[in-house]
Amino acid sequence: MGILVQKYGGSSLAGAERLRRISERVASTRRAGRRTVVVVSARGDTTDELLALVDEIGGRDAARRAPRETDQLLATGEYASAALLALALERLGVPAVSLTGPQAGIRAVGRHGEGMIDTIDTGRVRSCLDEERVVVVGGFQGINHVGDVVTLGRGGSDTTAVALAAALDAGSCEIYTDVDGVYTADPRLVEAARKLPYVTADVMVEMAFSGAKVLHSRSAELAAAKGVDLHVRSSLVDREGTVVSQRDAGLLETGSAVSAITSDTDVARVLVHCKGKGDPVSTILGILAGNAVPVDLVARSGPQEEEFRMGFTIRHSDVERIREPLERAVAPLGGGIRVDTDVAKVSLVGMGLLNRPEYLARLTMVLSGVGIATSWVSSSQLRVSVIVPRHHHVETLRLLHTEFGLADTDSDG
Amino acid sequence: MGILVQKYGGSSLAGAERLRRISERVASTRRAGRRTVVVVSARGDTTDELLALVDEIGGRDAARRAPRETDQLLATGEYASAALLALALERLGVPAVSLTGPQAGIRAVGRHGEGMIDTIDTGRVRSCLDEERVVVVGGFQGINHVGDVVTLGRGGSDTTAVALAAALDAGSCEIYTDVDGVYTADPRLVEAARKLPYVTADVMVEMAFSGAKVLHSRSAELAAAKGVDLHVRSSLVDREGTVVSQRDAGLLETGSAVSAITSDTDVARVLVHCKGKGDPVSTILGILAGNAVPVDLVARSGPQEEEFRMGFTIRHSDVERIREPLERAVAPLGGGIRVDTDVAKVSLVGMGLLNRPEYLARLTMVLSGVGIATSWVSSSQLRVSVIVPRHHHVETLRLLHTEFGLADTDSDG
Repeated sequence: MGILVQKYGGSSLAGAERLRRISERVASTRRAGRRTVVVVSARGDTTDELLALVDEIGGRDAARRAPRETDQLLATGEYASAALLALALERLGVPAVSLTGPQAGIRAVGRHGEGMIDTIDTGRVRSCLDEERVVVVGGFQGINHVGDVVTLGRGGSDTTAVALAAALDAGSCEIYTDVDGVYTADPRLVEAARKLPYVTADVMVEMAFSGAKVLHSRSAELAAAKGVDLHVRSSLVDREGTVVSQRDAGLLETGSAVSAITSDTDVARVLVHCKGKGDPVSTILGILAGNAVPVDLVARSGPQEEEFRMGFTIRHSDVERIREPLERAVAPLGGGIRVDTDVAKVSLVGMGLLNRPEYLARLTMVLSGVGIATSWVSSSQLRVSVIVPRHHHVETLRLLHTEFGLADTDSDG
Repeated sequence: MGILVQKYGGSSLAGAERLRRISERVASTRRAGRRTVVVVSARGDTTDELLALVDEIGGRDAARRAPRETDQLLATGEYASAALLALALERLGVPAVSLTGPQAGIRAVGRHGEGMIDTIDTGRVRSCLDEERVVVVGGFQGINHVGDVVTLGRGGSDTTAVALAAALDAGSCEIYTDVDGVYTADPRLVEAARKLPYVTADVMVEMAFSGAKVLHSRSAELAAAKGVDLHVRSSLVDREGTVVSQRDAGLLETGSAVSAITSDTDVARVLVHCKGKGDPVSTILGILAGNAVPVDLVARSGPQEEEFRMGFTIRHSDVERIREPLERAVAPLGGGIRVDTDVAKVSLVGMGLLNRPEYLARLTMVLSGVGIATSWVSSSQLRVSVIVPRHHHVETLRLLHTEFGLADTDSDG
């Protein structure tokens, strides 16, 4: 049988009892004859505790001032998880070996705290598997060209698992988490939400990017790009989760439906305006790129209009990084900026949405029917997003979940 | 100016306040223009807490069953210390970089948990020093030929500091600890104990080996072998400590005096006896060596005696490892073993003691004068040791400290 990659998140590993349960789950996989690689996050709140130490010892804003040292410190959380799970497996008589990211040959590039996996030299992992060992790899980090640890950002352990699965040509990749699959909407917000048995990788990428927290968007992207099938399931109950796959032709039959409704409140709407006829678009986008601030929806005034106006949405936490450089850039043009953080983004995610213009009509109609003001609609084949006032975001989710028949059909994605 | 290596123990690094104080001390060294390498242990009780986790997760005796994983876990304590001290230094505006043992090029050989430093590739440390950075190195561990972490055993951070000082040809090596130097006897046991301003490296090795806990014996050995001068001093108060050196000719003038009285209660006396005329000495020493049990005092009956008897002292914690193999070995010869753990070893340490036969006489006389039974006297140029009942060990220390004039002379070792 092929190689199986499993990933366990921090909450699955918090405390001796949970760690023991995970080790039993891994042991039974191993006994079933699968060559198993396990990727782990730091236990419980370890990463947050270490970040608090960074602040306490390094002073305010230390993680930004000394990102390399922050990474060296943060990575110890995953190292410890990996060693402890290996110890728990040895206790069950399962030969195991823990590897740090560097030991597992994971090379990363990019800035500290937001690295990307570049290549994986799988030699050591493969030779450990050949020795019939379970290989436990600390997720969330790799080593760069000078030998420093670079962490991959939140969700980085998911990405590590997918990258290892791709590099090892693994038969499957299981992501164990504290929810039991991918839902048509966040079940904490929408009671009628249903678990999807299947979802295509492209749709999963859009869902993750537009706010579904079950899987990090970069890991979904990587899985889509590399053709890795993911099985998202619960570490707490033994139940089928959601399979994220490009390859099952059967999935494509339901390809034009809405799969899920997602929402994101970590969003801010920025409006840049200038009185004159200048066109500072490239300056603005250059400032955003230079500060590594990803932009989602973008709208701008046409060239024939009196005033230049450009709006876009970014992450809440990125606002302060770009406010001042933007103001400085447009001041000579008699312009200014306005930031609205009291908003949420709600998205329909599915396949072939641009072929269904009636969706956009239904969406705006149902919301205006109850007096919810929408702004900045954006459409693509995979997603239709609107910006709504934040205090309406749960209501919007529920209305759209019902409107697009997610609660009561067999459409699965 | 040359390179300075400083080492801080775990208690110096426990808590944000102490860490801050250490960072200020390092910063002022750096500002004085010294190129500085700092070796750190794990903070406070981290190592003990991690060992408790090993037991909890891995089950009884897990550290012995899975020593590789235990090492992978334990090393995270030093990694975290190093990163946190670097963060504290950055906060003070001192450019710093933390390196794990592997990143610092420290190669270790030997068993997990009791590794030895083999070589140090100082390239990365030197290039960081060239960039005017303080280099903070996690002590206590290195990397072996397969890329695994190997820890160096208790006191391993002292050894790391000395090895780095030797490899970097450092001008000096300061060992910061919670006592302020090397004393003529343990000041907690002997009120009249005096701090020694100087002690020769050879004497320091004997002192460390015979129970003085201020410096680990392996680090003292390495310092003696490599000609590294150590300055043992307090991390809590700014006061001259004790210089351990071979090189200052001035020290040799007082070369025939007793420098200190040490004691060790982690000792067990083992007596092996056989009725017949067999000579199982090599078998016995083979069993000890095979179990990596170091032996100190050894005494045996002569070949002309009726019965074979051999006695030796070992560490308390090593008794159970060799009891059964020893019993099995001598049983066919009609023999058996007896273990006495209710003993202590008290030693005079100094230079040229064999040239002073009167010392042994004075030692036995003063003890027998107060009814303390001594057994198994052993002498060398550097040390005279006796075994006494454990409940007499403090009294023995005090009597000998006075008898050999350590409290009231200017003899300094």
